[in-house]
This record gives sequence, structure tokens and C-alpha cells, in this order.
Amino acid sequence: MPDLNIELIVIGDEVLLGHTQDTNSHWIAGALSGRGLRLRWMSVVGDKAGDMRHQIRRAWNRSEVVIITGGLGPTHDDITRPVIARFFNDELVPRSDLAKLITNRFALRGLTPPPGSERMAEFPSRAEPIPNQHGSAPGMHYQQDGKHLFALPGVPVEMRGMMEGYVLPRLESLRKGYFGFRIFRTAGIGESYLSRLIGDETDLAPVHLAYLPSIDQGVILRLSLSDDDESTVNGQLNKAADYVRGRVQDYIYAEDERSLEEVILTIMRAKKQTLAVAESCTGGLIAHRIVSVAGSSDVFERGLVTYSNRAKIELLGVNPAVLNEFGAVSRQVAEAMAEGARLKSGVDMAVSVTGIAGPSGGTPDKPVGLVWIALDDSRGTISEKYLFAGSRDSNRRRAAGAALTMLWKRVR
Amino acid sequence: MPDLNIELIVIGDEVLLGHTQDTNSHWIAGALSGRGLRLRWMSVVGDKAGDMRHQIRRAWNRSEVVIITGGLGPTHDDITRPVIARFFNDELVPRSDLAKLITNRFALRGLTPPPGSERMAEFPSRAEPIPNQHGSAPGMHYQQDGKHLFALPGVPVEMRGMMEGYVLPRLESLRKGYFGFRIFRTAGIGESYLSRLIGDETDLAPVHLAYLPSIDQGVILRLSLSDDDESTVNGQLNKAADYVRGRVQDYIYAEDERSLEEVILTIMRAKKQTLAVAESCTGGLIAHRIVSVAGSSDVFERGLVTYSNRAKIELLGVNPAVLNEFGAVSRQVAEAMAEGARLKSGVDMAVSVTGIAGPSGGTPDKPVGLVWIALDDSRGTISEKYLFAGSRDSNRRRAAGAALTMLWKRVR
Repeated sequence: MPDLNIELIVIGDEVLLGHTQDTNSHWIAGALSGRGLRLRWMSVVGDKAGDMRHQIRRAWNRSEVVIITGGLGPTHDDITRPVIARFFNDELVPRSDLAKLITNRFALRGLTPPPGSERMAEFPSRAEPIPNQHGSAPGMHYQQDGKHLFALPGVPVEMRGMMEGYVLPRLESLRKGYFGFRIFRTAGIGESYLSRLIGDETDLAPVHLAYLPSIDQGVILRLSLSDDDESTVNGQLNKAADYVRGRVQDYIYAEDERSLEEVILTIMRAKKQTLAVAESCTGGLIAHRIVSVAGSSDVFERGLVTYSNRAKIELLGVNPAVLNEFGAVSRQVAEAMAEGARLKSGVDMAVSVTGIAGPSGGTPDKPVGLVWIALDDSRGTISEKYLFAGSRDSNRRRAAGAALTMLWKRVR
Repeated sequence: MPDLNIELIVIGDEVLLGHTQDTNSHWIAGALSGRGLRLRWMSVVGDKAGDMRHQIRRAWNRSEVVIITGGLGPTHDDITRPVIARFFNDELVPRSDLAKLITNRFALRGLTPPPGSERMAEFPSRAEPIPNQHGSAPGMHYQQDGKHLFALPGVPVEMRGMMEGYVLPRLESLRKGYFGFRIFRTAGIGESYLSRLIGDETDLAPVHLAYLPSIDQGVILRLSLSDDDESTVNGQLNKAADYVRGRVQDYIYAEDERSLEEVILTIMRAKKQTLAVAESCTGGLIAHRIVSVAGSSDVFERGLVTYSNRAKIELLGVNPAVLNEFGAVSRQVAEAMAEGARLKSGVDMAVSVTGIAGPSGGTPDKPVGLVWIALDDSRGTISEKYLFAGSRDSNRRRAAGAALTMLWKRVR
């Protein structure tokens, strides 16, 4: 069965100049492949009208679906709207309904629309507006000769809202053949060890197995299969899923899109348990990940970012003598932090992290990347040592992931 | 003045499937524009030979310089070398000098070359090998009809070594005109209001002005100009920069690549000031952003993620009667949080955030998106109210940005 040819064009001088790392294309590619759709071409083009037309013409000729991001805002260099309208020999007309939406959006915040915002209400006569839940500029949908062009804003939250609410459902209905997949989200195990446990992937044929490592959410396994027949796809996927579960069950925290922190909060909420975190090198990242889950307040009581030794002593009751003897990055201090956090906040469970994120601050005994994590609950205190080998950012993210993994193993 | 047309092609299914975020293109774009060169086109293509040829042909026709990354390794799906050779009607021939280099490289680590590595020593007869300081596969340089094609590995450290040691020096010698730019990073003002203050952008001609909005780092302004003459470019850019500074000076926190949190920490470190943060709805995000800057421990003393009312009372000394009377999301509580954080931690300055990030928890009086931020220092307490209209994630990020902006305005 032939795939639907989907092409993405990212508009923006700032990407070509290296000022902005484009993350929209990565998100769009992942959102498509998660739904059994596949991006075939991707390109970045600057804010010149001629270059944009050139690239849009080419995409429209070779692909059935063209997605464009960027350049829909109110300012002078946001020329995507007129360029696309001209490409379709269409014209921009003022739309009072869109003008009203934009005015209302500003009014909600007690503001009058700034100059230039009337441009956002000038809309191509033959395009369908795509509602924007997170901003002012509507997206555009052209449908012609059985092909589709979607133009979305470059602001990630606005783009994602339109993709999820409008573009992806339409593309799923256009898909040729049936595509199915199963997801296994794992924690506490690396890609090569997973692969060793699962064994030869060709045993799973015709089902395809992909390993998708991530810094924050562990290794994600994806089984996928395309076929004209839906029941064939589901039957084969169920068989392969049973096989994978049989091999790596202990490491699977979710078989859906839930994050590790969401799974932890769901379990703790059901058990009516409460949580506190005490962080040094992760500096609030664990708390941030927990609070990013809506409704986390049922479980999460407080976070203590005890970056200085004084804060560890005052807020967590860590014994200064222990800090002196073993140093801030040690099993003893990690455990004292977790115990102190639980005791002082009166929660059921507390996790702690202390480490050297880098790039400086390492010693021969305690190199950059050394991290101690600990957990304290009514069953006692446990701790683990890690040595990460990445940048400051990746060491901190991996440390937060290790702490959440420890928490998940304890509560599941 | 015609620019040198430079085009980049990234090879890799993993990028189109959304499994890997391509970071090479961002690095290459920045390395070029930092040297007054400009990437005009960029695209990503999968590992299919047909798609690769299609894209290479197009790039070779429209651009004078084509840079290709990826697919030069020893495995079966690394087909960039034969595809390019065939495009130039060239053939791969075994090169004993390259074979020796590869064998030596493995021998240095006490290894024998893995199967398939002999393929890396089969080299197109008319291409020049580009030395690889960090890996086995050499790069390729074709020169024909006054045009250049460079094929580099996808492994970032190998690609960067070849760019810096070989490609960039050659491109600088080919450069026709000169390209320059200036950056202004702003905080506390939206794109449309900036645009109103700056006025008609065409007054800046021939300098081009772009507005680059972001959720976390405010709106970035970029002035840019290409010309045959370097001193003309610099003169015009300086004039335009003076003009922009004259209009929006108050909102500019950096004229380089530094983040808002880096600027704040640099200023506070110089003034020997210390900082604490008290966060409710942002849940550790502000602390996380501050701690993500290397060396933040000089300034940042602690963070208190007081998600529950009890934590606000116990850790920050917020008066329970004030919580009862005004509610957790109020000016009074935001101010009490900042005052309590400063008093209890003994720092020079404390910022606080309390708000309703959503999606639920709003009331008619206090809707989702309502956020109070406050700052306390020896000069007193200030506070501000915001009403954000995005998702939970974007409301939290905007609240963190607003708090950092308030802090920057106070310390600068």
C-alpha cells in the first residue's frame, strides 16, 4: 500500500542563520509517525517571498500533503499568508469573524489589539481558517485537486494545538491502508540491554520493532505494522506485544503516552500517598516535571531546592558534621536529605538528589557526572550511585530521570 | 551583491521519523553565519537512494555549495558515498592510503576494523578525501564547474571537525559578499508593542529587521545586512543598532547569545547578591532555569516549591489568616511568599510566583492563567498580576519568564 506523501516546510531566516534551533520539525515528525503517517521530505526556507514560492511549488508538485510552519504573525516579515494566497491565485479579504476573535482574545486580557493585528484577520478567500487555541493568528487550510496544504504558526504551543486539534485527525482519515502500533515505555534500562533481553528482532516479523531512546522518558519501544486489513494488523501486533512483555515486563511503566511522572502520580494518588522532593544538582527539575502534570497537587506537597549547604542544613536538617565528613555529594548526605525532607514535610515518601552536574566542580574522587539519589519512606531509606558522562544539561536530566525511576520502582 | 548560495542536505530516516532531533543543521547554520556566510536552503531526506539523488540534483542546480551530512558510515544503510559518486558519473575505487588510515585508527584502540569498514576505503576517483580527526570515515569534496559539494559524517564531533578544519576555511575564501548581523534580546514586551516602538522597519533599509518571539527568552530582534564591502556592512549595522537601541533600550537584556537567567546571574554575581525563589504554580521551573547556568551556586541559595498551603505556611511563614482571607493566588500571598523566602533564607533578594496554571482550578474571580509574581529586597516588596491564555505548560513557562523579567529589571 503506497504511503501518503507528506512534506514539511519550515519558514524562518532565524533557523537558517542558526539563531533558533527548530524543534517544530522534530515534534511534527514524531506526531506523524506515532499515528502511522510518515514525513517524506522536510526543508527550511528563509523569509524571502521568491524562495518560499519556489519551495511551496516544488512541495505541492511532489507531495499530497504540505505542512508549513512559521511566518503567520502580525509583523512585516510574516509573509507566509500572502505568499501562499498568491501561490493559489487567491486573494486576502478582511474577515470580520476573525477580527472579532482576535479582538476578543486581547480583550480577555484587558488589552486592545496592537497595530498590525488587523493583518491577521485578512484571510485568503478560498482557505479554511484553523482555530488557534493559544494565540491570535489563525492557521490556513487549502484543499485542491485532492491535495492539502496546512499553514501553521511557528510558535510551538500554537502549532501543536492546531496539529492535534485539526491537522492530525484529517491526515488520519486520508491515510491509505491501515497502520497500527503499540508503545512500551521503559525505565531503568538502556537500549543495548533491552535489545539483549528481547533478542533477534526479525523473530517479530512482519511486525517492526523500533528502539527510541530519550533522555527524559527512558527507552520507548514501538511495534508497528501496516497492512490493508485492520484485524491482521491488530492480531500480529497483539502477538508481538505479548512476546515483548514476556521479555521486559519489569521495565515497562506505561503502554500508552503517559510520562513516567504521570504514572507515578496516578499510582500515588490511588494509594493516597504524598510526596516531597529535595534537590541539589537537579535544581528544581524533578519538582518541575511533577508539577507539569495537571492535578499533581493531590500528591505533591513541596519541593526543596537546597542548592547551598546552609539550605541542606536549615531546610532538611542535614547534620553539618555529615556534610563536613562525607561532602555534599555522598550517600550519607543524599540519604539525610531524603529523610529530612520526609520528616520535615510530613509526607509519605521523599526523594533526593545530590551530584556534580559540571562542567566544573569535579575532583579525582568525585568526578563531574557523579550523582547520588535516595528515597525515604516508612519501609526505610534506599540510595543509588550514578556516574553520567554528558553535558551539564544531560547530566541533570539523567539524574532527574534516575530519581523518578527509583520512585516508580518503589510505588508500583 | 550576490551571496554565495549554500545549501545543506541532512540524510537520515531517523530525523524524518522524529526519533532523533537533528542538531547538526543548527550548528552548521550558526557556524556559517558567524563567518558572514549564509545558508540559503536546508532539507532533510531519508535513506532512499532515489530521494537522495533527487535532492542532490536539485541542490547542485540551484546552489554553488552543497553540504551533505550523514550516511557515510560502514553499515548497510549508509549509502551516501555510492549515491554521490553515481550522481557525478564517478566510480568508487579501493584506496590503500585510506584503508591504512582506518586500520591504524582501530589499531590505536587495540581493535581490528569491524566488518564493512573496508567499504569506507572505497573512494570516488575524482573526489578529494576530507580528513576525519575523530572517526574512521573520511569526508568527500567534489569540485566541478566552479561549484563545490562536501559530504560529511552525521556524527556531530566528526562533522564539526571537518567543518572547522576543511570546509569553513574554503568557504571563507569563496565568499563573494560580506554578511553581518546584530542581536538584541528583549524581555517584558511583546512583538507587536516592540514593533510599535521601533516604527516603520523600512526606515532601517538596507538593514533588515526580524522579530523572533520565544516563550522562554522574550522577543529577539535581529538586524542583518549583506554587502560586497565589510566596512559598509558594519557601518550600516552600527547605525541601525543605534536606532533600535534608542527606541527600545529599556527592554534589551543582552546583545549576544546569553539567556535572561545568565544575564541576571552575571549582574548579581558582580554585585555579590544572593537569591532565593519561592514557587507555587511554576513548581521548580524558575529554580531549574537558574541552576541550568553553570556557576549559579555563587548567587542562588535555595528554591522553595511551596505547592501546598501548608508548605507556604511552614517554609515561608505565610500567615494562615492571609491565605484564608485572600486565597493562595493573590497579591497578598505572593508578597508574603517573597518576604518569607528572603527572611527565612537570609538572601538579598527573593522572587515568588503563585497562580492557576490550569487546565482546571479556575473560578470566575480567579480564572485559569491568573498569576501573581512578587519580589522582595532591601528596597521593599513589589508585585505584578498577569493573565495568561495558554496551556498549563505555556502558562507556567510564561509565569517563570515574567518572574525572571521582574528580577532582571530590579537588578540591572
